[in-house]
Amino acid sequence: MKPVAITMGDPAGIGPEVLAKFLHARGSGDGLLLVGPHWALQQGAEIAGVSLPRVQFEAIDVEMPPGFVLGQVDAVAGDIAVRSVEAAARLCLNGAVSAMVTCPINKAAIHAAGYVQDIGHQEILARLTGSEWTATMLMTPGLRVAHLSTHKSLIEAARYVTRDNVREKARLLDATLKSWGFTAPRIAVAALNPHGGEGGLLGREEIDEIAPAVADLQALGIQASGPIPADSVFYRAIDGEFDV
Amino acid sequence: MKPVAITMGDPAGIGPEVLAKFLHARGSGDGLLLVGPHWALQQGAEIAGVSLPRVQFEAIDVEMPPGFVLGQVDAVAGDIAVRSVEAAARLCLNGAVSAMVTCPINKAAIHAAGYVQDIGHQEILARLTGSEWTATMLMTPGLRVAHLSTHKSLIEAARYVTRDNVREKARLLDATLKSWGFTAPRIAVAALNPHGGEGGLLGREEIDEIAPAVADLQALGIQASGPIPADSVFYRAIDGEFDV
Repeated sequence: MKPVAITMGDPAGIGPEVLAKFLHARGSGDGLLLVGPHWALQQGAEIAGVSLPRVQFEAIDVEMPPGFVLGQVDAVAGDIAVRSVEAAARLCLNGAVSAMVTCPINKAAIHAAGYVQDIGHQEILARLTGSEWTATMLMTPGLRVAHLSTHKSLIEAARYVTRDNVREKARLLDATLKSWGFTAPRIAVAALNPHGGEGGLLGREEIDEIAPAVADLQALGIQASGPIPADSVFYRAIDGEFDV
Repeated sequence: MKPVAITMGDPAGIGPEVLAKFLHARGSGDGLLLVGPHWALQQGAEIAGVSLPRVQFEAIDVEMPPGFVLGQVDAVAGDIAVRSVEAAARLCLNGAVSAMVTCPINKAAIHAAGYVQDIGHQEILARLTGSEWTATMLMTPGLRVAHLSTHKSLIEAARYVTRDNVREKARLLDATLKSWGFTAPRIAVAALNPHGGEGGLLGREEIDEIAPAVADLQALGIQASGPIPADSVFYRAIDGEFDV
């Protein structure tokens, strides 16, 4: 069994401390590969007041920056955070690890480090893999939710609700769930506006963009439904009506 | 003790049926004043298969429209719904009832009835009372939440987040809670964008509009805090840190 990579996240953030507590509670580093600087984990263990088990490391060899203060946005810390994600992703891509888990990164810090396109983990992974379409999926037993957009202001997120974007994101979900063994994934597409736009009185994206996208998907043989108002779509998914 | 008025809502909707079941289960109409057409409640009782106790009525004398079908948008039903709210509100304003409770109305039906400004209950009540500023407040033990805007598309709701609107809505809340006996209501103002805009990276409304509005409120001696990201403000309010 290949190990799971865990990135330490922003060294000025809560990641190293949480990780030190986790390792202490687990009592073993077996099956894990930590990605980040040694000094950050040591500092996390000191803050948490815990001892650490032996654990495998993919070290990011960047020294603690001068004037480093926990909780402060730091460009060097942002650089370490991005490099850790990149290293873990490469370990995934070359098959050295089975998966990667990420500790929190700070968008202001990675922005300060000069990664102006890398707003979050999703954008970094899209860049490394050359992926045109990506999605964040939140999963818990009984419910899978994928965002149409991430890391946009609310107005930009609403403007992003176009027929093409909805259709292509749903196609990505359909292909992904099929690769996981679903024969015909049942995809619910949520509405954008209050009460699903109430027939156009409270917004027209449902009529002009989302419904046509769902029709496109159905024409492609994909089991898509919607737009479904946001106040009922989650209950219906939890009740088992949809796979995502 | 003055009675409580209950509007029957849209006769084509679920209101009359729910009301019939409620009256049957309660076993008495004491202390209630129903506002709506008699035939709608009778039909609700027939559908629910329940008998009704005697109950006081403020009858809306509009006969069942020809071709009336439950669950279908109907302009006459929309007209009845609006007239019921108006009648109940007048009973409140002239002191004949102590409060009013409303059954659901259908925005498309009241729009079809020609009330193009009356999108919902709040707009009808604002019109009848000549109020410039109004708010919908959701209340449950331990939590009070007021909307900055209601009945707008998501894009229009985001555009409505201006310094003036936030300040005036919070002033209305401050005055309302003071009239309820709060000496210095603690008002939390939620952020708009994901992560509270993350320092401007994910939207600037927090910086350009909400924070200045909170400063205005504090200068007026109002106990306002914010902007607070939406994923923490509810927990903090439930924990008792804010009154609304």
